[in-house]
Amino acid sequence: MSKYVYYFGDGNADGNAKMKNELGGKGANLAEMTSLGIPVPPGFTLTTAVCNYYYENNLNYPAELEEQVMQAIQKNEKVMGQIFGDEKNPLLFSVRSGARSSMPGMMETVLNIGLTSKTIPGLIAKTNNPRFVYDAYRRLITMYADVVMEKAEGVETEDGHGIRHRLEKILDEFKATNNYKSDTDLSGDEWKQLTEQFKAEIKAILGKEFPDNHIEQLWGGIGAVFKSWNGKRAINYRRIENIPSEWGTAVNVQAMVFGNLGDDSATGVAFTRNPGTGDNKFYGEWLINAQGEDVVAGLRTPLPLNEATKASGDESKSLETTFPELYDQLDKIRLNLEKHYRDMQDIEFTIQEGRLWMLQTRVGKRNGVAAIKMAVDMVHEDLIDKNEAILRVKPSQLDELLHPMVDPVEERKVSPLAKGLPAGPGGASGQIVFTADDAEAQAKDGKKVILVRDETSPEDVHGMHAAVAILTAKGGMTSHAALVARGWGKCCIVGCEALHISVDKKIVEIGKKTFKEGDWFTLNGTVGKIYEGQLPLKDADPESNEEYSELMEWADEIRKLGVRTNADRPEDAALARKFGAKGIGLCRTEHMFFDPQRILAIRKMILAETEEDRRSAVMELLPYQKADFKGILDAMHDLPVTIRLLDPPLHEFITLDDEQIKELAAEIKVAEDDIRKRIDELHEFNPMLGHRGCRLGIAYPEITEMQARAILEAAAELTKEGKTVYPEVMIPLVGSLAEFKNQETIVREVAGKVMDEQKVEFEYLVGTMIELPRACLVADEIAEAAEFFSFGTNDLTQTTYGFSRDDIGGFLPVYLDEKILPVDPFQSIDQSGVGQLVELAVKKGRSTREDIKLGICGEHGGDPDSIDFFHRVGLAYVSCSPFRVPVARLATARATLEN
Amino acid sequence: MSKYVYYFGDGNADGNAKMKNELGGKGANLAEMTSLGIPVPPGFTLTTAVCNYYYENNLNYPAELEEQVMQAIQKNEKVMGQIFGDEKNPLLFSVRSGARSSMPGMMETVLNIGLTSKTIPGLIAKTNNPRFVYDAYRRLITMYADVVMEKAEGVETEDGHGIRHRLEKILDEFKATNNYKSDTDLSGDEWKQLTEQFKAEIKAILGKEFPDNHIEQLWGGIGAVFKSWNGKRAINYRRIENIPSEWGTAVNVQAMVFGNLGDDSATGVAFTRNPGTGDNKFYGEWLINAQGEDVVAGLRTPLPLNEATKASGDESKSLETTFPELYDQLDKIRLNLEKHYRDMQDIEFTIQEGRLWMLQTRVGKRNGVAAIKMAVDMVHEDLIDKNEAILRVKPSQLDELLHPMVDPVEERKVSPLAKGLPAGPGGASGQIVFTADDAEAQAKDGKKVILVRDETSPEDVHGMHAAVAILTAKGGMTSHAALVARGWGKCCIVGCEALHISVDKKIVEIGKKTFKEGDWFTLNGTVGKIYEGQLPLKDADPESNEEYSELMEWADEIRKLGVRTNADRPEDAALARKFGAKGIGLCRTEHMFFDPQRILAIRKMILAETEEDRRSAVMELLPYQKADFKGILDAMHDLPVTIRLLDPPLHEFITLDDEQIKELAAEIKVAEDDIRKRIDELHEFNPMLGHRGCRLGIAYPEITEMQARAILEAAAELTKEGKTVYPEVMIPLVGSLAEFKNQETIVREVAGKVMDEQKVEFEYLVGTMIELPRACLVADEIAEAAEFFSFGTNDLTQTTYGFSRDDIGGFLPVYLDEKILPVDPFQSIDQSGVGQLVELAVKKGRSTREDIKLGICGEHGGDPDSIDFFHRVGLAYVSCSPFRVPVARLATARATLEN
Repeated sequence: MSKYVYYFGDGNADGNAKMKNELGGKGANLAEMTSLGIPVPPGFTLTTAVCNYYYENNLNYPAELEEQVMQAIQKNEKVMGQIFGDEKNPLLFSVRSGARSSMPGMMETVLNIGLTSKTIPGLIAKTNNPRFVYDAYRRLITMYADVVMEKAEGVETEDGHGIRHRLEKILDEFKATNNYKSDTDLSGDEWKQLTEQFKAEIKAILGKEFPDNHIEQLWGGIGAVFKSWNGKRAINYRRIENIPSEWGTAVNVQAMVFGNLGDDSATGVAFTRNPGTGDNKFYGEWLINAQGEDVVAGLRTPLPLNEATKASGDESKSLETTFPELYDQLDKIRLNLEKHYRDMQDIEFTIQEGRLWMLQTRVGKRNGVAAIKMAVDMVHEDLIDKNEAILRVKPSQLDELLHPMVDPVEERKVSPLAKGLPAGPGGASGQIVFTADDAEAQAKDGKKVILVRDETSPEDVHGMHAAVAILTAKGGMTSHAALVARGWGKCCIVGCEALHISVDKKIVEIGKKTFKEGDWFTLNGTVGKIYEGQLPLKDADPESNEEYSELMEWADEIRKLGVRTNADRPEDAALARKFGAKGIGLCRTEHMFFDPQRILAIRKMILAETEEDRRSAVMELLPYQKADFKGILDAMHDLPVTIRLLDPPLHEFITLDDEQIKELAAEIKVAEDDIRKRIDELHEFNPMLGHRGCRLGIAYPEITEMQARAILEAAAELTKEGKTVYPEVMIPLVGSLAEFKNQETIVREVAGKVMDEQKVEFEYLVGTMIELPRACLVADEIAEAAEFFSFGTNDLTQTTYGFSRDDIGGFLPVYLDEKILPVDPFQSIDQSGVGQLVELAVKKGRSTREDIKLGICGEHGGDPDSIDFFHRVGLAYVSCSPFRVPVARLATARATLEN
Repeated sequence: MSKYVYYFGDGNADGNAKMKNELGGKGANLAEMTSLGIPVPPGFTLTTAVCNYYYENNLNYPAELEEQVMQAIQKNEKVMGQIFGDEKNPLLFSVRSGARSSMPGMMETVLNIGLTSKTIPGLIAKTNNPRFVYDAYRRLITMYADVVMEKAEGVETEDGHGIRHRLEKILDEFKATNNYKSDTDLSGDEWKQLTEQFKAEIKAILGKEFPDNHIEQLWGGIGAVFKSWNGKRAINYRRIENIPSEWGTAVNVQAMVFGNLGDDSATGVAFTRNPGTGDNKFYGEWLINAQGEDVVAGLRTPLPLNEATKASGDESKSLETTFPELYDQLDKIRLNLEKHYRDMQDIEFTIQEGRLWMLQTRVGKRNGVAAIKMAVDMVHEDLIDKNEAILRVKPSQLDELLHPMVDPVEERKVSPLAKGLPAGPGGASGQIVFTADDAEAQAKDGKKVILVRDETSPEDVHGMHAAVAILTAKGGMTSHAALVARGWGKCCIVGCEALHISVDKKIVEIGKKTFKEGDWFTLNGTVGKIYEGQLPLKDADPESNEEYSELMEWADEIRKLGVRTNADRPEDAALARKFGAKGIGLCRTEHMFFDPQRILAIRKMILAETEEDRRSAVMELLPYQKADFKGILDAMHDLPVTIRLLDPPLHEFITLDDEQIKELAAEIKVAEDDIRKRIDELHEFNPMLGHRGCRLGIAYPEITEMQARAILEAAAELTKEGKTVYPEVMIPLVGSLAEFKNQETIVREVAGKVMDEQKVEFEYLVGTMIELPRACLVADEIAEAAEFFSFGTNDLTQTTYGFSRDDIGGFLPVYLDEKILPVDPFQSIDQSGVGQLVELAVKKGRSTREDIKLGICGEHGGDPDSIDFFHRVGLAYVSCSPFRVPVARLATARATLEN
């Protein structure tokens, strides 16, 4: 018989922290904490196998499940001395999700299960607190109706407003009628009266009675959690976070404890270190006489946990001063957990009538700065070793250090509009929008948008993802917006109470000013300040972060893959060098042609009728190109610089309207009709597969000759100036040895001439970009002549899959939704298809030329998963944009450790 | 020391017929004939290795060559009893090219080498025929000036007229002044006078003296032949015929014999069987008192060889009646050669003063009808076996039997404009053009053109290739035009003397009628009749050709690969079945959408806003599609029919101008702007890599559902009618198992429903088109679900090479010229690249599903070289257009024999 239910309670647990795959993160850690002797309300976990069984068997449970659940309930009853469904001493349960990987707020929870007309009187008698009992009952009714009776059943109401909204409206109206400000103003009788109204409304709207049976409530809650695994929010989140649907969720059923039983009760959320800065200080928030959901939802602004983390001038009472003994107990648990888990923990606790209960521990999310600091600190504290530290920092978290900040000089000159909590560091400027859909739509149009909301909810994740920054009026540092933004390393300010937002009118009022959709804000997420308009942003300066520098040094010691950068200009090369790039893997030459003087020469060339005219037009570009290459080779002196010869089809240089044709005709004295004819001739149906890459240099050898001369003369002159440069001439879009040799011959001939003319010698390589399936298939032949291969995985993905990157938008969303593609293959390399070709080319290339230099210069060079793959196939280096260089340095080190 | 020179003469030869690679075809056969005791003027052959050495060493010869040549000359002198350069008894030489594969007229020849001021008096004394000697001298001067001094040196004259033209003009003017009609009217003195004028003109135009030294003449001639191997004509011809440049040419130096020494001298060209019909009759032409070049050039109309092949009413004298003994000797040689070579020979002979000399034998070119008849006849004559017969017929030669003919019923109703010699069988209609360049240019624009010339020359081959037919005013059945057209199986009429062509005015006069460029002619090449305008053409009827049927039966017995057809309509399917196709390998469904009623439904679908509307629009197509599929399945009953689901991107169905948008808007009640917006949305930058193939069916599953239902309901209904059908549903453009499964699921669900509804069972398969590199790479995965693979090698070539078939024209000519591509990869499969993927997919596919059905349905399915490859990789069938089916049947048999 399979074991589907794992019990934990009173110091004993069936499971442990290592069983995350079966019990989910929450369940595994509840078991672990229980075994550690930490006070945890007893309960049990239904495994992820139940979830998978449920979906594979048409929403039915395994036959043995019910009995296992009933046995676990009995154990619980024994430990708690309470009976589930009992008239006198009823046991209540919470039902919570718990996936392998944390998915905050993406799935459902039902609390207070077990409250029925039968158990309520007993609980009132026992607690002598009807207000508490009916408040708990209305919470159960609301959650249950929303989660179990509506969402899980897929019910849609006509006006689009859910049952939760309707029930909250009844409560709001009641409070308004009675002039109540807070929920705590309501009496027990009033809550009771409201629960009756709630139940009637549910019956009216959903057509079914709220169940008055504790067993029915329990199974309803369990089913709703499993169903929420395939809810729209959860699916969206999994897609963004690359979580496979096969993982499933576990369900945790746990005895209820209450933080809202009076002023000796409380609830809180804390981190064992500061998740925003990484400081080794206990950091958290709590609320007296409240349930946990009140903290997370951001409805009441919580209080600081201790004195050390209070802002100066903050008058609020910390847990440390309010309940010193309990704080002390909590702080000991904190140290115990960190030592045990060797990582920062995110914990939830509840104090019920003076007794501390731990509801959860899990590895805490943190932003990049904090992740780096914690990892490096923990090495110094001997908690972990350097390798572990490297594995602790996600490469993408470095982005935060590398993102621009608001220019501090400019920032000092202006006053902020308002101030909020600094939930996500870094600076951002954007145009404000008020809904997630608007954020997504306008971002798609290329706008930088800041999503401004009262508070965010899991329904908003797509818009949060699309926005450059998030700003909320409510919520704390552990609110939904803060958690999500931190996970993504996105600029975010929360709890900015000065905001008065009208979503309908699409305006926000701050003081006497009104801002409408499209107005510009600048956010400094590091300090929580909001500015009107666009302030200049400043490049990040990761070098000033000591822990970052230390971590990167460790990474550099470990990694096997080299890291170069893709840069077309000396400035970019210099920046990348500062970020740690050891050379240029791809210097594109085409942008250099768009300068007005140069484009004229190119157009003359395109319109030339004879080879002679074409040659003389091309040669006009030589001095410009030489200067370009001199700059970039100089900026990367002592390091290799791979320069790709002209790649795009010629028609890109001669896209002209009538007016421009007229001007050009006058300027270069060619008939307008001839220009039009030539433009027509150059038109291509599939330019991606057209006359480009080395096909240009083969048809117009004078282009190759000019570019080779520019590169090699630049190298010669720098060499004579006493500099050491390593130019690597890269022939693009090669599919056969014959193509490569045709172009190589030109380059080598020019090189010989240049060295003769300038009486100087220097090293240079001639190699190719491997970006066509055929190039991979005949890589052994091409390697006979090519000294290096640089994989152009963007184009290789296009041709291998037959996907045009410019057109894939037409069906990519469907492909991701239908799980036909696990991930956009232009973001992360398709290892089994495109990767197979890369592997083949590596093997074949080496079979002919053992010491062939192998690198990759496609966009995938900055993607950690792809980097891991490139490490495994044995490339020598990856090349990526300057800002991705630190990411790649870390990712390459992780790849070394993980393989 | 390498042997570079092979001697032959007087019954002894260093080489033999097997040494074609070294000696070229001509040299090898001269050696062979010599060894057979056939009278051959003695001589020697410089090997193809000399040619390659010459080009690899900057146009220098191997050091040992000169001595070997001098030794061979001495042997020749001994046999002939004449001395090269001798004052009294001079030996003269011819210098001719000779490649491995015959390249008629593509390279140079120089005759009469050795005539100098020193040798001429001796020769006059010896022959007592100054007219002959000076005629020979002027021929030497003309050829030498043209070939050695001008072409080989790359001299270009200002007005574009070559030296040959100028010399001929001098002769023409001389004849006009003297009122001479024929060259034979000139006396010896007059020829002498002309040779002096020629030499003066040469000096004036080319700036150099014509050499008066026999050794200088000889080496000049040899060098010119080697240089002509890389002349423009030869390169063009090699490109068309796929002859590698590395083969090189040999040079044959041979003692001169003269057919123009008087009325006891003659020259002729003959075939051992009729090259136009295959009849086993000695067939040839001769001229009395003439040199061989006079026959080939078509300047004089030659006489028939024998009585048996004379046309009725032909009064001209045959060789048989003029020189019966010599004819008898020749006929014996003919039989000897056929028995020895076991194939039809093309021979050249010269009679010098009553003595017969054989100048050449080679396997004779023949048209398709003749090739088939000869091959089958020779099997019946026990000369060859069936396998040999199959290898004797080039698959492309079958084309001739399959080409349309002028409809005989219609033809009888009209009178021909004129009549010529039936040099290339079959019928053709086209617009007349007068230059090869015009033919090429207009054919590129999609026109069908007939090239009309006085006579053709090797300079015209590109235009001849581009034309649908060739018509000349001069020349015989062995003229250049006739030889070339026969080789290509192209409709051709030569020697139509009624034509009066003015190339300058671009008109041709026939009788009193004048036709200008662009006017339509229809040619019946089988009988040599020319008609005004366009006559209807009729499908070929190969079945009526008994030898063809016999040969195809033999082919079918031998071949391993199956042959299917690509057909979209029942008529095509029926035709292909008649041609021997065993099923349909590719039935495209998109053409079925362009009918006005249907296109409206498709457009409604494209413009639908909801899935429901889209579905209802698509379902309107169901009855049409069902009828389509019923027709085609019925036409191919008992045989498999592979039907491909919709493939092209939707924008192909909605390419509309403003007026059409307006109409559509009115018709389907959608705003014009919405139509425009949707058209914009559907626009793609690279449609080849866009939203097409299975990507359509995945995004719009209702299309797949409708098509599957149409196919399967058609199959169900035919099954109920008692017919056996084998539908094979093919999912296009699959790159992963997930894509395939998505579509397969729909098809199988529909199949289950249809069988239930119709209460009938039938077999069907679901498979995929393998046309993306990724599909090949993960073929093992795809084969988990796919029951068959059909390779779409067109698209696979596009993506593997990164070549758009629509755009490759921009650089393909350069690629072929520069030898970067050996052949257009869309015509013949790129075996090392694309082929490697096909092999991989075959291996991987079989590793998962041992009995997977494997075929190919790209255009390469009708290309013999590609078929050979597909045989080797072990496919089960090829599929091609109906007219290519016989070609494929033969090619598949040849592939079996050759591997």
